[in-house]
Amino acid sequence: MKKQIEILLTLLVTIFLFSCTNGLNTQKEKNTFEPIQTEIPVRPAGQKDVLGLVAPRLDTVRVGFIGLGSRGPAAVMRFTHIPGTKIIALCDLDTDRVEKVQKILDGEGLPRAAAYSGSAEVWKELCQRDDIDLVYIATDWKNHAPMMIYAMEQGKHVACEVPAAMTLQEIWDVVNTAERTEKHCMQLENCVYDFFELTTLNMAQQGLFGEILHAEGAYIHDLEKVWESYHNDWRMQYNREFRGDVYPTHGFGPVCQALNIHRGDRLDYLVAMDNKAVNIPEYLIEKRGIDRDSAYNFANGQHTMTFIRTEKEKTIHIQHDVSSPRPYSRMYQLSGTKGFANKYPQPGYALKGEVLEGSGIPNYENMNPHSFVSEEVKNSLMQQYKHRIHQELEEKAKEVGGHGGMDYIMDYRLVYCLRNGLPLDMDVYDLAEWCSLAELSRISLENNSAPVAVPDFTRGNWNEIQGYRHAFID
Amino acid sequence: MKKQIEILLTLLVTIFLFSCTNGLNTQKEKNTFEPIQTEIPVRPAGQKDVLGLVAPRLDTVRVGFIGLGSRGPAAVMRFTHIPGTKIIALCDLDTDRVEKVQKILDGEGLPRAAAYSGSAEVWKELCQRDDIDLVYIATDWKNHAPMMIYAMEQGKHVACEVPAAMTLQEIWDVVNTAERTEKHCMQLENCVYDFFELTTLNMAQQGLFGEILHAEGAYIHDLEKVWESYHNDWRMQYNREFRGDVYPTHGFGPVCQALNIHRGDRLDYLVAMDNKAVNIPEYLIEKRGIDRDSAYNFANGQHTMTFIRTEKEKTIHIQHDVSSPRPYSRMYQLSGTKGFANKYPQPGYALKGEVLEGSGIPNYENMNPHSFVSEEVKNSLMQQYKHRIHQELEEKAKEVGGHGGMDYIMDYRLVYCLRNGLPLDMDVYDLAEWCSLAELSRISLENNSAPVAVPDFTRGNWNEIQGYRHAFID
Repeated sequence: MKKQIEILLTLLVTIFLFSCTNGLNTQKEKNTFEPIQTEIPVRPAGQKDVLGLVAPRLDTVRVGFIGLGSRGPAAVMRFTHIPGTKIIALCDLDTDRVEKVQKILDGEGLPRAAAYSGSAEVWKELCQRDDIDLVYIATDWKNHAPMMIYAMEQGKHVACEVPAAMTLQEIWDVVNTAERTEKHCMQLENCVYDFFELTTLNMAQQGLFGEILHAEGAYIHDLEKVWESYHNDWRMQYNREFRGDVYPTHGFGPVCQALNIHRGDRLDYLVAMDNKAVNIPEYLIEKRGIDRDSAYNFANGQHTMTFIRTEKEKTIHIQHDVSSPRPYSRMYQLSGTKGFANKYPQPGYALKGEVLEGSGIPNYENMNPHSFVSEEVKNSLMQQYKHRIHQELEEKAKEVGGHGGMDYIMDYRLVYCLRNGLPLDMDVYDLAEWCSLAELSRISLENNSAPVAVPDFTRGNWNEIQGYRHAFID
Repeated sequence: MKKQIEILLTLLVTIFLFSCTNGLNTQKEKNTFEPIQTEIPVRPAGQKDVLGLVAPRLDTVRVGFIGLGSRGPAAVMRFTHIPGTKIIALCDLDTDRVEKVQKILDGEGLPRAAAYSGSAEVWKELCQRDDIDLVYIATDWKNHAPMMIYAMEQGKHVACEVPAAMTLQEIWDVVNTAERTEKHCMQLENCVYDFFELTTLNMAQQGLFGEILHAEGAYIHDLEKVWESYHNDWRMQYNREFRGDVYPTHGFGPVCQALNIHRGDRLDYLVAMDNKAVNIPEYLIEKRGIDRDSAYNFANGQHTMTFIRTEKEKTIHIQHDVSSPRPYSRMYQLSGTKGFANKYPQPGYALKGEVLEGSGIPNYENMNPHSFVSEEVKNSLMQQYKHRIHQELEEKAKEVGGHGGMDYIMDYRLVYCLRNGLPLDMDVYDLAEWCSLAELSRISLENNSAPVAVPDFTRGNWNEIQGYRHAFID
């Protein structure tokens, strides 16, 4: 009996101690919040990172296009102007759309492409062709990742409209497929080629702003006039179902390049906050006659904001708003130790005096960082820092067009790098990072804006390459 | 013996169950982050809230000023132009400063005031006088709260420069003192009276922007040229010691008024993020010869951002940056369901077409919310919505001056309300809310940007008054 009591006492003390430890842990959690972690899948055996990936040179880039509803036809048109390309195949659910794009080829005096349409799986046949190097995807968001993955598995490089992946699961699947197949996987983020962004990136890379400590981007675009133009209402439905910054890349991409993300720095954690949606629910009531309860059963916020902190203690602020009656803005702001750039509503720069004095730019005025530089100084700076890509492509880009020429530059650079066996301007980790904001911001929002860790999609190699650079053959 | 075993078993089961409950709590905390709570002191017996506080009418407002270094002398000068006031006493540590301000009175043909100077506690003697109604405080930040509390305890109304309180403890002490003594306690936040802000507030109150869902404010002001002007380097030292948005009220005040905070809505929780400081540490090294390690032993971030969410699911974004070479900005942005206002870098409005059509404003152009309205429409709107306060005081304010006249309007309104027995434009809960950002943002920053609950400083009565309004006698 004594023995039994001893055992019981031992048990008692053990459980008591365990209980205390538990209490201490709870206490600690109350004292210091740590970011919420998401699962980082272990890299499968036999594959490695694809940082700086190069593929064998292609003399001619043979392309198949999937998705000819909105962005697709203009992409095909642009490719008719890019040397060293051949449009092999066209695919859309809708046969008429394929036919309309064939007429673009007719108009340019080019042979008609192989046509795929009429069924939900027909795009797979396009991917299976053995005379295609690149699959170019411009469908709705939900089809992006499955199509990219399948195309890479069929041995094709892929380029895909934004956002190229919508969930962390999709992102990891895309990353793993790109690493396993060693195929290029580029997100078609056009805004990184816009004139102000690329010129300003060049200034940043040449040190005009000192060390960049803070950057901002946004997608503020009232879509009221275009909601009805999406096939099967997919974009509206996506916002009804998903909370978070579901369309982050136009604002996030350019600032990640300026901050050398996974090229010497990495995204550490984020917090997001949104407000209640009013304008879209009211739109649904007024324009579609939907009842109030259903209309306000709307997942996404009206205005969504995300702060991101990097390993090197820099900050990023990204905004999403597609329904407030506000002027269009992608923000694009860089704030450094020696200067400041901001694109919207008016492009402008502010610089510490000494920078200007050493730069060879005439010091037209007393350089006061309290103000933006004059139009004259700004124009002079932008001329001096015009990016090599713009120097080479500006005229042609304006002629071909597409969002002021940036779409043409984006496609041209993709083809240029593929033809010359160079790393692409945007790799699969850029795609992963820029797209991850959607689900990571949702997790934060669902936890009262709690911090959420941003996974290192390179799985350990974010500090291997130092500094973001565009590749050229010379 | 059996009895003993039974007791032990009961204990065992109890402790085991407690341990399980503890485990469950831990699990729950991992699944849903709840904002960090700070202590809300119970309201002492015998006092109640001072919402809408009125005090007996004062025919003449007799004022004593404490702090004549930076903002003080201009305040005295402004009071010489406000009818129904009498400058009774002047106090500063430094006797010369008091003498300089006496000369202002000489110049205006007014009698000299009682002078207090030369010791750290002499301000208390000023507060003890029985011929003063209002103590006006313009010292360094750390003295604000103790002086306000002491002055109220001596039966005086108080007005204090921003930020009027630096910690939650100070804020609660000020609130409790104001409630106990039923004296007015106003923070001298001048920016709420600036022309664009007050005109835009009037537009918001008249519904021009629909429901305001998001608002922004900032204090972005490169202080490099003025660091050496603070007595005993107090402002620099404050930033070396304290992390957080230590100077939030210029940006936060105007947006809280537009969002009717504690007048139908309340601040719910916030998250803050900052980046590393570089410019001030480098300044300390270059200009003061401080060694690198000491210089970089700097608590505050270079750029601090805070998101705040309200009970009614609206959002606020506040920024603080006093060292980046950026153009001055207090942002002041209101984003509503029908319109948008933004002050910096260029004041502008964007409105949905139907609003303009129904407002009596000529529809000069096709109203496209993608763009700001033209200068012509903007000027016409600003004329139509000029606030009653500006209509009455604009000319005199420009003549007397002080940050474009807004300082004069602030002082005038304070005196007007005291003389007419009206509630002041800003009450002690405004002071509490606007100042609380400093410590609440620090708590968030020290917890990896975790959410922190904003206390309800009215302790339950935030929804009693509906809508922010300025008081007038007619």
